Amino acid sequence: MIPTIEYLNGVVRMIDQTRLPNETEFIDCTTPEEVGSAIKTMVIRGAPAIGVAAALGASLSADRIEADDFDSFFEQLATDCTALAKTRPTAVNLAWALERMKRVAQENKTLSISNLKVHLREEACRILAEDVAINKAMGNNGQTLLQNGQNVLTHCNAGALATAGYGTALGVIRAAVDNGKDISVFANETRPFLQGARLTAWELQEDNIPVTLITDNMCGHFMKEKRIDAVVVGADRIAGNGDVANKIGTYMVAVLAQKHNIPFYVAAPISTLDLSLSSGEQIPIEQRSAEEVITLGKIRIAPEGVRAEHPAFDVTPNDLVSAIITEKGVAKAPFTESLKRLAQS
Amino acid sequence: MIPTIEYLNGVVRMIDQTRLPNETEFIDCTTPEEVGSAIKTMVIRGAPAIGVAAALGASLSADRIEADDFDSFFEQLATDCTALAKTRPTAVNLAWALERMKRVAQENKTLSISNLKVHLREEACRILAEDVAINKAMGNNGQTLLQNGQNVLTHCNAGALATAGYGTALGVIRAAVDNGKDISVFANETRPFLQGARLTAWELQEDNIPVTLITDNMCGHFMKEKRIDAVVVGADRIAGNGDVANKIGTYMVAVLAQKHNIPFYVAAPISTLDLSLSSGEQIPIEQRSAEEVITLGKIRIAPEGVRAEHPAFDVTPNDLVSAIITEKGVAKAPFTESLKRLAQS
Repeated sequence: MIPTIEYLNGVVRMIDQTRLPNETEFIDCTTPEEVGSAIKTMVIRGAPAIGVAAALGASLSADRIEADDFDSFFEQLATDCTALAKTRPTAVNLAWALERMKRVAQENKTLSISNLKVHLREEACRILAEDVAINKAMGNNGQTLLQNGQNVLTHCNAGALATAGYGTALGVIRAAVDNGKDISVFANETRPFLQGARLTAWELQEDNIPVTLITDNMCGHFMKEKRIDAVVVGADRIAGNGDVANKIGTYMVAVLAQKHNIPFYVAAPISTLDLSLSSGEQIPIEQRSAEEVITLGKIRIAPEGVRAEHPAFDVTPNDLVSAIITEKGVAKAPFTESLKRLAQS
Repeated sequence: MIPTIEYLNGVVRMIDQTRLPNETEFIDCTTPEEVGSAIKTMVIRGAPAIGVAAALGASLSADRIEADDFDSFFEQLATDCTALAKTRPTAVNLAWALERMKRVAQENKTLSISNLKVHLREEACRILAEDVAINKAMGNNGQTLLQNGQNVLTHCNAGALATAGYGTALGVIRAAVDNGKDISVFANETRPFLQGARLTAWELQEDNIPVTLITDNMCGHFMKEKRIDAVVVGADRIAGNGDVANKIGTYMVAVLAQKHNIPFYVAAPISTLDLSLSSGEQIPIEQRSAEEVITLGKIRIAPEGVRAEHPAFDVTPNDLVSAIITEKGVAKAPFTESLKRLAQS
């Protein structure tokens, strides 16, 4: 499988996810601004993946700083980190990765600047490498929730392309398959960006996991027809009480799952938890351009001048969530206690 | 406003709805086969509109029949009607209009063949003209359910373009506006055919009724944010118990509306009722080509060879329906009684 993101001697290389699956193009970034722009335009997307990208962006920032003392070095690093953190507001992994990079800089302030740069580069590559391991652990924990022969619905892409590899929600599905279970996937196409149609369907096809593509508005019908046994999605930020911010449409899927008594699972690393927030209502929801709703590729699909809205995420309240799957274990309600326990373990 | 469908001296002219709003092109049909093909390919769509198209198609059939006696004439007419009825299975208006044309032929079997052809042409034009009047009466009945200042969600296009004019669901909204109420509309884009983005947004813009286009998966979010006060949709077939077949995704909207205590109204003419069915489970659901999910216009939006499903309609159970608005009045639960009463009135 093509890596989502990699570090190659001064270059952060990403597969351009806006052009998949029709074109396989790579974007090479050598500055934090280029990384920031790739995050903003969704060349790379998915909460864990943009965390990794931001960490590598911070390392590119460190590499270019010409400073003799730590304070001046750190000031410039922090400025670039602040700019990177602003590229997308909802996923907390971005802020988490940048905070970690700054903390590591502070903890190693006695090193020479050139050694510090090496140290930060290694830390960013460690964040990348850890992400795959975290996803595999998460998959292992989550796959116990899926039974042989089940049809699993997913929304958006919480796969290898949303992470450094293996995936969160798709990691759970991959782990179930790796454990010999026969799993079929329904993929919501996930308008407006079509991450489900373009990325999830492509990833699963590559892995020979049976996948059926449907439009988002069909999933209620297939639940009613008893053709969906479980839902697994990723997350961009999870509040302390278990409220989950994820790709727009996730809330709709969760309401429909509850109506049909279908378990609704969220798979996300501990870095997606934001225990500083007591409720999902405090999570900032990114509003993206209406143009992204009105056009598809280069085709305009609505009359000229039409008003549109584009909240990129929504919040699913904890009472619709059956379990939250992390690399440290599976949390169930009441989430305020179970998530805190996992985070501290 | 451009007419959806009209009869012009031997020609049935339709605006090509597959090309709106970017292009305004017309299709001229002179045979029942051409009308059937226009219905099948969704040049014309919407339950009432395809009923009108089928009636005009039956008149084109009558016009070309070279027969000396009624029995031979009727046999050929019935054969063409059977072919027209098969073009789309879910909307009952198609069958209703064709049955009416055949009944009128039978009732006038003593006329000369040439007079009978004139009679059938007049009947088809009457079905067209009646449809607009029915929609205005329906609008008038339904608009009492909407309050000044409300935001109304609609799914698909149940507007002028889905009928001979004025619309069913959009007729209710138009009538509310005509009665001085300030109504804003949220239009679900309605994948895969994008009737909401292409047709509903266009119609409402032309009428200066404020409209906001959203992707289908956003409507739950906007309901949760208390930005939607009511839902009005059309129908393709309504069973005797009030179960409603309508465009795929309607069921999802209805479940979300119930979750948020938002009234869910269905606007449809009496000809959409199928009292021969005791439950919506008996309504045939058209399965359309997976290609229509995988491609948008000429763009492929998913990997090559991906499996997709495309049920074109779903069924909303009567317990999710707040009221059914018809030209003869508004039916509420229990629908088995109220619908029968309206149909017989």
